[in-house]
Amino acid sequence: MINRLLKRLPTRLFVTMSQDTVSTSAASVPKNNKLQVSLKTPKGTKDWADSDMVIREAIFGTLSNLFKRHGGVTIDTPVFELKEILAGKYGEDSKLIYDLKDQGGELCSLRYDLTVPFARYIAMNNVPTIKRYHIAKVYRRDQPAMTKGRMREFYQCDFDIAGNYESMIPDAECLSILVEGLTGLGIKDFKIKVNHRKILDGIFKISGVKDDDVRKISSAVDKLDKTPWETVKKEITVEKGQSEETADKIGEYVKLNGTLQEIYSVLSQDPVLTSNELAKQGLEEISTIMNYTNAFGIDSYISFDLSLARGLDYYTGLIYEAVTAGSAPPEEAAELKKKAKSEDDASAYVGVGSIAAGGRYDNLVNMFSQASGRKSNQIPCVGISFGVERIFSLIKQRTSSANIKPTATQVFIMAFGGGKDWTGFLPERMKVAKQLWNAGIEAEYVYKSKANPRKQFESAEKSGAPLAVILGKEEFLEGKLRVKRLGQEFANDDGELISADKIVDAVKEKLGSVHKDGVDEVTRLIRGL
Amino acid sequence: MINRLLKRLPTRLFVTMSQDTVSTSAASVPKNNKLQVSLKTPKGTKDWADSDMVIREAIFGTLSNLFKRHGGVTIDTPVFELKEILAGKYGEDSKLIYDLKDQGGELCSLRYDLTVPFARYIAMNNVPTIKRYHIAKVYRRDQPAMTKGRMREFYQCDFDIAGNYESMIPDAECLSILVEGLTGLGIKDFKIKVNHRKILDGIFKISGVKDDDVRKISSAVDKLDKTPWETVKKEITVEKGQSEETADKIGEYVKLNGTLQEIYSVLSQDPVLTSNELAKQGLEEISTIMNYTNAFGIDSYISFDLSLARGLDYYTGLIYEAVTAGSAPPEEAAELKKKAKSEDDASAYVGVGSIAAGGRYDNLVNMFSQASGRKSNQIPCVGISFGVERIFSLIKQRTSSANIKPTATQVFIMAFGGGKDWTGFLPERMKVAKQLWNAGIEAEYVYKSKANPRKQFESAEKSGAPLAVILGKEEFLEGKLRVKRLGQEFANDDGELISADKIVDAVKEKLGSVHKDGVDEVTRLIRGL
Repeated sequence: MINRLLKRLPTRLFVTMSQDTVSTSAASVPKNNKLQVSLKTPKGTKDWADSDMVIREAIFGTLSNLFKRHGGVTIDTPVFELKEILAGKYGEDSKLIYDLKDQGGELCSLRYDLTVPFARYIAMNNVPTIKRYHIAKVYRRDQPAMTKGRMREFYQCDFDIAGNYESMIPDAECLSILVEGLTGLGIKDFKIKVNHRKILDGIFKISGVKDDDVRKISSAVDKLDKTPWETVKKEITVEKGQSEETADKIGEYVKLNGTLQEIYSVLSQDPVLTSNELAKQGLEEISTIMNYTNAFGIDSYISFDLSLARGLDYYTGLIYEAVTAGSAPPEEAAELKKKAKSEDDASAYVGVGSIAAGGRYDNLVNMFSQASGRKSNQIPCVGISFGVERIFSLIKQRTSSANIKPTATQVFIMAFGGGKDWTGFLPERMKVAKQLWNAGIEAEYVYKSKANPRKQFESAEKSGAPLAVILGKEEFLEGKLRVKRLGQEFANDDGELISADKIVDAVKEKLGSVHKDGVDEVTRLIRGL
Repeated sequence: MINRLLKRLPTRLFVTMSQDTVSTSAASVPKNNKLQVSLKTPKGTKDWADSDMVIREAIFGTLSNLFKRHGGVTIDTPVFELKEILAGKYGEDSKLIYDLKDQGGELCSLRYDLTVPFARYIAMNNVPTIKRYHIAKVYRRDQPAMTKGRMREFYQCDFDIAGNYESMIPDAECLSILVEGLTGLGIKDFKIKVNHRKILDGIFKISGVKDDDVRKISSAVDKLDKTPWETVKKEITVEKGQSEETADKIGEYVKLNGTLQEIYSVLSQDPVLTSNELAKQGLEEISTIMNYTNAFGIDSYISFDLSLARGLDYYTGLIYEAVTAGSAPPEEAAELKKKAKSEDDASAYVGVGSIAAGGRYDNLVNMFSQASGRKSNQIPCVGISFGVERIFSLIKQRTSSANIKPTATQVFIMAFGGGKDWTGFLPERMKVAKQLWNAGIEAEYVYKSKANPRKQFESAEKSGAPLAVILGKEEFLEGKLRVKRLGQEFANDDGELISADKIVDAVKEKLGSVHKDGVDEVTRLIRGL
């Protein structure tokens, strides 16, 4: 149907190719504008292909192996949830949730993260304990900054531990996983900022913030990584109605950062703070976790940073965030951003933000149990989420010089011959391919009855196959196949003649030492960065 | 915030747990109904977990290895596309597309399949040739039949070959992939129905159907696998306005089925049909592909079935569909369905439908090129899509007796001791775990400072780990760790004492022969079914 309609249209239609702009000018809009199709992906989304895809698969493989090493099992939840499941979980960021259109039936929204669906799953199935990982896409209607890996559709790689366990043991393992994950991906220059929601709430309390205002003051403080204190202070006083004195008192605390040991010493000797019950509990937990981070040998990565607040509503205990050199905006960023000619330009002056983050959320599962009218079911949880797109941007720069093999193809099957009676041996090549496929060996051939040798070698090179199986006209009729190594260093090597009925074993033997694909190679490459 | 609101609510709220019904009765609705949360996934969607997830991962692994064996590379497109990209591609099924809500900006829809996004990708990037695979979720607002694997969110596993190649060579490879995929998943009792759109269109033409009516008559014929001819005939005549004579003529052809060779013989000797140019082209292609399916040795799976029409608008050549014993509804299904008390009951009398399907679509890429105002760009494509959820239902029944290991855990670290000075060796266990993790070995321990031996053995058993590393109180202080095999058959085995600094090597050596996880096991199991 569309075909017939297309025939009636003028040949030149309006095209939109840019990812971020939809410009319309009266002159370019065709008279019949029903079929004006923009050949692009939606704003803030992209296709993954070629070596980018290979790198991403290597990252996913590295992280899922990490998660499995820690006893993780994986679950898969739907891309959309009932709208009410997501409601009230994300504070100010709730406005970024994508809703599905009401087409009759239930109201649904695309998941905003993997944590809320995980908590819904636990509450719904009464799961008492689980270590689960989940690598999947999440959706946020944010302003995209594609070059920095800030997208509207992006992957999260989450590991969470649910269950009533002894204090801080799972939390410490999450921090260890964070370190193992980033170092395993070749990222070494990172820092884990750690803070505790109970200590932070204690600070707000003793500074004079009312209970009802705590979360919104917390959101304001969370901006300190991107915004100077003076601006945040203004938000606290002018926008969020706290007194000058309250703001100043908060300011004294949130400027503190250092090792766990250092900041713990300072805070635990603060009589006002320790008189607050919440803060006291938080400090006890910090004291406990110091034994464990020490056992894991990860203290050098950790910085106790009282300005870390994390935007999400659901955190209740330890919170953390890994940042690297590229996380913060460059110096003078604000000024450069103002001068930028377009939004795309301006996005160059934004940092990539945190590359992994997480924390403890002890009430989220119970929120679901209670709100659905079930019995109260307190399943405490703690987790860590890796921001793959951001990590990808970092790794891509570092692997840019690598020659990444696109396919897994190990054998390219060719036929050489000529003359009047030359058939090209296509069904014969197919038969050889089928034998190799059945033996689990990756094999290709050109899709042509009679292909010339040069074309076949070119295709073989493009595939990256290390081995060729050649059906020579005379040799093949004598029941023999030629097996030859490919690549420049073997240009003068004629290979070896093998009896056709032994071809699978011969190929297996020759591949023994070379069999590998691009993902394997990149995984090794990344690990060694 | 939600916490505080919850406190004000009555304890018992309305719950909805069923997957498919939302019942509301005045009595059960609370007065303050703002926070009535249904603890469920949206209709037609589900969570994947436990052994189901392990089986699914084994299916994905088997299929992606298959696709890689045929030179496939993978790409990943966004879950939603611009609405206009999907428009006009799915015929009558377009009503099943999920739209995103208009929240400002572009209008988007969830992808309905992976084929249209693939064609959009090729047109957008001017990709001349590619063999790509894509394993991802697609969305259809259909009436779900969960027990049969008919879902609103479900996975497709697609392999497609794009490029201007010699006739039928890629098509034959897709059929071979279909056979290799299903047999590799332990499914042997399947049949591939094959037909050709050009032959079918030729039949409609010579039967007196007007060009404009061809696609809607095709949709009617497509129902023949579920519906008797008399009903389809009524749709063709009464609903779709064709004459009795036209319908009868169509009826004569679409009843035909047999081997490629048999039906080809009949049709190629039909002077009326072969006088139609389209049908003639189609028959030539059938004649060509017979050489290739013969070379691949897959003829016995193939049935040339003229009633196969495939619903989608975009097919232009060879079409195919794999069906198995459970694909068709049981005999008397229609009657049983009528008697069923609820929709859920009725769904038991529906077949799972096709378990894999595909075909050639030569104009889809060009549709995008033209509609976006680019130069005409004819990239012919052919592909195959495996319906994983349906295949899963079949495999699940067959593996129901298998004891599937839930985690990949290889080593469980325990501490045994007692007495007043017994610390429980928690940081010490953590240090051992960290050594194993760093060496790539999956290891767990219980999250408790002082755990009793029984609890630790129980947790180890739950994890399925084949090996324990034990920190005995005295032994450990002497620098020694005990390595012990787990499992009933080793109940009386005390294990071996190893010097603590050699533990990683000792564990590696002992694991050498047993290291495997649940996905590996299930993959082997399924292959051998």
